[in-house]
Amino acid sequence: MKICTTVQEMRQARARLGSVGFVPTMGFLHEGHLSLVRRAREENEAVVVSLFVNPIQFGSPDDLANYPRALERDIALLKEEGVACVFTPEAAGFYPEDFATQVDVGGVALELEGPSRPGHFAGVATVLVKFFNIVQPQRAYFGQKDAQQCAVVQRFVRDLNIPVEIVTMPTWREADGLAGSSRNSRLTEAERHRAPVLHQALCRARDLARAGERRRVVLEKAMREVLAQAGLTDIDYVTVVDPGTFQARDVVPDDALALLAVRLGAVRLIDNLPLG
Amino acid sequence: MKICTTVQEMRQARARLGSVGFVPTMGFLHEGHLSLVRRAREENEAVVVSLFVNPIQFGSPDDLANYPRALERDIALLKEEGVACVFTPEAAGFYPEDFATQVDVGGVALELEGPSRPGHFAGVATVLVKFFNIVQPQRAYFGQKDAQQCAVVQRFVRDLNIPVEIVTMPTWREADGLAGSSRNSRLTEAERHRAPVLHQALCRARDLARAGERRRVVLEKAMREVLAQAGLTDIDYVTVVDPGTFQARDVVPDDALALLAVRLGAVRLIDNLPLG
Repeated sequence: MKICTTVQEMRQARARLGSVGFVPTMGFLHEGHLSLVRRAREENEAVVVSLFVNPIQFGSPDDLANYPRALERDIALLKEEGVACVFTPEAAGFYPEDFATQVDVGGVALELEGPSRPGHFAGVATVLVKFFNIVQPQRAYFGQKDAQQCAVVQRFVRDLNIPVEIVTMPTWREADGLAGSSRNSRLTEAERHRAPVLHQALCRARDLARAGERRRVVLEKAMREVLAQAGLTDIDYVTVVDPGTFQARDVVPDDALALLAVRLGAVRLIDNLPLG
Repeated sequence: MKICTTVQEMRQARARLGSVGFVPTMGFLHEGHLSLVRRAREENEAVVVSLFVNPIQFGSPDDLANYPRALERDIALLKEEGVACVFTPEAAGFYPEDFATQVDVGGVALELEGPSRPGHFAGVATVLVKFFNIVQPQRAYFGQKDAQQCAVVQRFVRDLNIPVEIVTMPTWREADGLAGSSRNSRLTEAERHRAPVLHQALCRARDLARAGERRRVVLEKAMREVLAQAGLTDIDYVTVVDPGTFQARDVVPDDALALLAVRLGAVRLIDNLPLG
């Protein structure tokens, strides 16, 4: 497995590979990431994984500094998975001092995580356009856990005619329902114990929707009640949207998506579930 | 010569070409464009030219509507030059109704034309990123007449790691010094007669700089005087900048660039000249 730390090294390594499946990550890998890597191996001649905690997608320096890192363990995991190449650029060379370009996405990017985390999706879109230009993959793999991110990526890839196929995979969950996330490692034991209630709230909305409920206020209230019963009240959003626009409608469509962003102590967790 | 009107046609045509030199234009071709095409032919196996009046880089609907067009004549000219492929997309398909992505460039893009034409450089950068992803050229060719545009393109190509070499060529000029521009066709006979004074003003600044003058205010005043003597007083900017930043400095560097944007009646013309 080749480890590239500069753009030039990565370009040279890529030139020696056939079709490439690309899995962009911020490291601290969990089973969700590995499920993307395995799918990428099935569908391409080689897999490239980036491990890069992208500074420009973090709103707060604290959040960036606290993001968990485990580079050596990640590299060992990817070696076992038969990955051809790992790309871990240094932030300083990747974003030179006079770096001045940003990919701004409107539409789906303006909802939910958009206002909650100003600049976040622009940071994600900008780093991915850079990665796509350097790695030149045939396919790139993303987890549905970040459902809105998947929609944002599909939008700018289509808008900018980027020649890459975006593949999304279902959220990987722990046995108790908690969605896989690198941020889970920052939960205290007590918080970890309560965290599955996010998924339980989403399941409650799905059960109601399957029983015919289409009123958004009713679905949202039910989710908030499940969260409140577990003492989770620091809520960024709890909502049900049209998955095409990520906008809330009073009467939710059959393929509606329930989403939430909730703080447990110092950790902000997100999750979502299709209600169809 | 193949003429492509959809993204899909263009991708298919490109797949059959070897190394590609790309000349993006808004049509109504003049000798300046053709000098880019000839250089592209020398340096690549095939040349692709786009003819597309890009709506998102125009601030005013009037300016867009009045931009000159001559598609059949342009196609005939390019055929004579041995161009492999012309790309003339329909705006409606190129920018679908829910198009929502923009490439924003800071730094050099924030000066001069930036504030004079809000949104212009974002429109230019966005359409070029699309073209580069569709045409996948080895090299792309731009005229120094749009000096700031050249700097903006070089900046976002570097920042986004786009695998294309940007080649810039000297401004093509009429015998009387007027810089080649599609907009020249909109000048009245009287305006066309006065238009070379833009170049004369720039030459005056160059003569002074060559004689040792480094004070920006003196160089700018001299240019304004030349313009005023010809009755040109509707001035957007007349300045001398550092070509690395496009910022004005009181004492101009040895490689300074003089630039101006002036209105003659309904037509806004720009020009520039290195003072070194």
